[in-house]
Amino acid sequence: MTTPSARLAELGVTLPEVVPPLAAYVPATQVGDFVYTSGQLPLRDGELTAVGKVSENAEGLVHVDDAVFAARQCALNALAAIHGLVGIDAVKRIVKVTGYVASAPGFSDQAVVLNGASLFLGEVFGEAGTHVRSAVGVAELPLGAPVEVELTVQV
Amino acid sequence: MTTPSARLAELGVTLPEVVPPLAAYVPATQVGDFVYTSGQLPLRDGELTAVGKVSENAEGLVHVDDAVFAARQCALNALAAIHGLVGIDAVKRIVKVTGYVASAPGFSDQAVVLNGASLFLGEVFGEAGTHVRSAVGVAELPLGAPVEVELTVQV
Amino acid sequence: MTTPSARLAELGVTLPEVVPPLAAYVPATQVGDFVYTSGQLPLRDGELTAVGKVSENAEGLVHVDDAVFAARQCALNALAAIHGLVGIDAVKRIVKVTGYVASAPGFSDQAVVLNGASLFLGEVFGEAGTHVRSAVGVAELPLGAPVEVELTVQV
Repeated sequence: MTTPSARLAELGVTLPEVVPPLAAYVPATQVGDFVYTSGQLPLRDGELTAVGKVSENAEGLVHVDDAVFAARQCALNALAAIHGLVGIDAVKRIVKVTGYVASAPGFSDQAVVLNGASLFLGEVFGEAGTHVRSAVGVAELPLGAPVEVELTVQV
Repeated sequence: MTTPSARLAELGVTLPEVVPPLAAYVPATQVGDFVYTSGQLPLRDGELTAVGKVSENAEGLVHVDDAVFAARQCALNALAAIHGLVGIDAVKRIVKVTGYVASAPGFSDQAVVLNGASLFLGEVFGEAGTHVRSAVGVAELPLGAPVEVELTVQV
Repeated sequence: MTTPSARLAELGVTLPEVVPPLAAYVPATQVGDFVYTSGQLPLRDGELTAVGKVSENAEGLVHVDDAVFAARQCALNALAAIHGLVGIDAVKRIVKVTGYVASAPGFSDQAVVLNGASLFLGEVFGEAGTHVRSAVGVAELPLGAPVEVELTVQV
């Protein structure tokens, strides 16, 4: 079986440094067989990959394609948080993805956006990446991020 | 003790087919004693029971009564997802309900809406249906749904 | 080691009465080593400590400082809910905080607001208060509350 770390290497993906929390909390924590991550923003090298609300018709807003990419970045940062705590190869299963999409009025493709995270997790973990998911459209996210993703995994 | 499936029959409720996920995830998953569902929309025979944001004064919006019914439909779909994975009679307890209500400005009766889910779970599971709950009002939901509900149950 | 109840006494904090649920659910529930709380509003003696959406520039809105205080009140009510179920000294660890901030357009300091909850939990539980957290900005909350907080703890 290919390990998650080997699979990441095959995909040419390097886990980033753990994004420091914005405040008084930690990136990931373990209780028994579960590891929980904090809500992850699409930060890359300290900057958001996109800023603003997501819309189908993106005049001054975040285009769906960029939001899909941002969701993938959130998932990558969540994996980095897990890797920093228990090592990525300790993950037996991705259990749950909760995704919040800062949504312009009338935008209802939150599921499309979150596929950026879900499909990436499938690429890395295969069958073990199959998860339940809730996708909701929210008013505002920290720092003006378009997407926030949290993971629950089994280790 | 009446089983949940017997109780559903008494109530005249038939569990629907599992609603296929909108994207790259599964309807329900089990880890140890827990089963988690994906966020469920109020789909019935492939169509939303109501579309739009919830308001007290529903001109062109979703009336609270229709949102209450939609929340019940979400809960029913969640039970179908659980039934498809482990069988409804394996449920020992409804642990947690998280409910998102697409809310028109100024609408603050999210608790009333979610009672459509909570009371239904009480009807089916009795004491074992008693759960914790978070109800929040969000900007937008997938497909323009007025409500989304996810469950955590103990099996 | 100082117990959480001793630490609360040192801080001069008295756990309030458990806030009765708005509807058909319970304030807290236990499954194995986990206790989950319902989403808690900043109710104190039956009234919200603040009402409305949170903004940096609070003309007719809730100022960030008041929202920080409201988040602390939510956390306090969550501890009361846990205390009512298992006793506060049974808490081994605060695992997870999910915080919803009713956000005026353009408000993106949800992390600052939720620090009102996170820092308070750190004061009471010390190292055991370290948790993961998701902070999101939502459209509306029950009763017009500015903040809602739910906890997952290990007992």
